[in-house]
Amino acid sequence: MAMLFLSTPARLPVWKPMFDAAGETLIAGEDAVSDPAQVTAIACWTPPADLSRYPNLRVVLSVGAGVDHLPPMPPGVALARTLAPGIEAMVRDWVVMATLMLHRDMPQYLEQGRARLWQSHPVQLASARRVGIMGMGRIGALVAQSLSALGFDVAGLSRSGQGTDIQTFTAASMDAFLERSDLLVCLLPLTAETRGILGARTFAALPRGARLIHAGRGAHLDLQALRTALDSGQLGSAMLDVTEPEPLPQDHWLWDDPRVILTPHIAAQTDATEGARHALAVMRALNRDTPLPGLVDQAKGY
Amino acid sequence: MAMLFLSTPARLPVWKPMFDAAGETLIAGEDAVSDPAQVTAIACWTPPADLSRYPNLRVVLSVGAGVDHLPPMPPGVALARTLAPGIEAMVRDWVVMATLMLHRDMPQYLEQGRARLWQSHPVQLASARRVGIMGMGRIGALVAQSLSALGFDVAGLSRSGQGTDIQTFTAASMDAFLERSDLLVCLLPLTAETRGILGARTFAALPRGARLIHAGRGAHLDLQALRTALDSGQLGSAMLDVTEPEPLPQDHWLWDDPRVILTPHIAAQTDATEGARHALAVMRALNRDTPLPGLVDQAKGY
Repeated sequence: MAMLFLSTPARLPVWKPMFDAAGETLIAGEDAVSDPAQVTAIACWTPPADLSRYPNLRVVLSVGAGVDHLPPMPPGVALARTLAPGIEAMVRDWVVMATLMLHRDMPQYLEQGRARLWQSHPVQLASARRVGIMGMGRIGALVAQSLSALGFDVAGLSRSGQGTDIQTFTAASMDAFLERSDLLVCLLPLTAETRGILGARTFAALPRGARLIHAGRGAHLDLQALRTALDSGQLGSAMLDVTEPEPLPQDHWLWDDPRVILTPHIAAQTDATEGARHALAVMRALNRDTPLPGLVDQAKGY
Repeated sequence: MAMLFLSTPARLPVWKPMFDAAGETLIAGEDAVSDPAQVTAIACWTPPADLSRYPNLRVVLSVGAGVDHLPPMPPGVALARTLAPGIEAMVRDWVVMATLMLHRDMPQYLEQGRARLWQSHPVQLASARRVGIMGMGRIGALVAQSLSALGFDVAGLSRSGQGTDIQTFTAASMDAFLERSDLLVCLLPLTAETRGILGARTFAALPRGARLIHAGRGAHLDLQALRTALDSGQLGSAMLDVTEPEPLPQDHWLWDDPRVILTPHIAAQTDATEGARHALAVMRALNRDTPLPGLVDQAKGY
């Protein structure tokens, strides 16, 4: 039983001592594998192309929160993602910040600042803004709680339509959800169903002048539809932490558009210690044959 | 008994019907005063130069939350400020936004965006940042509560050193308060004691690279000391809603400094309805001889 480590080398000095202390074997890099039959788990962002080299492989663990970048697993190989309390809090902070920035017209004030213009505009109370959160998993529920505490009128959209004390819509009532979303927050996982979901049809169903906060994946967002919606006034502004592709090319229009604020995929980073702790919990679950923490339903894709 | 209205004319269409409905007299402008003895209250931002014209004047009501712009009142004239739940929530929103923006390095990311540079930097958890709030009145207590809920390690500084469940320092322990303030938030009223308090001495007592969030008054901040502290690295960044003077002159260095984000005094605005409601509460208190809502202690200045 060993975990093959194929993640950022900078994390090794944190992972290795933690595995040693727990009596677990961590193999750093495929070149260091002497007996492939020993490998029962692989921690990676991108897995090796040929997993058949490891006959006893039972789980591939994504070192991030998402798994949309991973290929389908061979039969008998589970897929897990890293759960770390820090990731959820970091994304929450970014989304609360971005929501407040669009609520309080920061794109406009930043543009005025570049023009050295001191001019105020009417202030709205948070309670006058309806926020719609797409994706009510652990992070979405945390965001909903924080934005509600600030007085926003929050609703969620989720596959199951349940799970929290926030008003939650299901896909069947998506139009009703969008109609009430002055500020639309995307926290969805990327799946075949959600790819391109932030597009012309969705934008058209929002109240005129709605604002978009996007911390999902770049491929959720149709950038041409975003531009059209901003130009027509259907969308007022947007704040994006993800784009397709990343990094965003230097000549892309998004960099210059005053209605859009970009951050370079920094909503969350897995802390090396938290990542190693989760990896050890996965090894323990394998040893004891208990449920894997962060197990992904490969049919649903998250 | 009448209130003389000397505030923004745009608010009159809201105030007048509310006064009429309550059976109170509102006189719009000094030219409309036929009997000065009738005026018992004046609602204004700037009061008339000669208050002796109104022999029965009992209160001057500032239509904003601050009173630092008002001259001393003649003997027997009380000073009150407008309390409105909306003002407190608005300032709270701005301060939470600004704190998150400096916590999450937005000045740096905005500068990178202008240079079309996609580059991430390490993310810190809110729990790793110590926030110090100068001024623990109603707004400070609300801000402390919201930032604590987001996981920040919050302490306050107040004259009395009491009043909330947040760790609160008094002026006597100001250095200890500053030493632990990675993010310093100023919400103080402007008084003779607090003028210029955000200056070289205060900045030197902060941890190196500390960040400043200022929603007090322009005159709290020594802009030359701010520039020196930013240049030396003692301060890392600042977000300001107030400057001295306002509007900030077009040729001022603050407009161009990438370490500083400015908004044009928009943390809060008094909603016309909320302002009129407070003014009516002041009139009712005068009629019934009960304590004036928003009464200012003229010796303390707030």
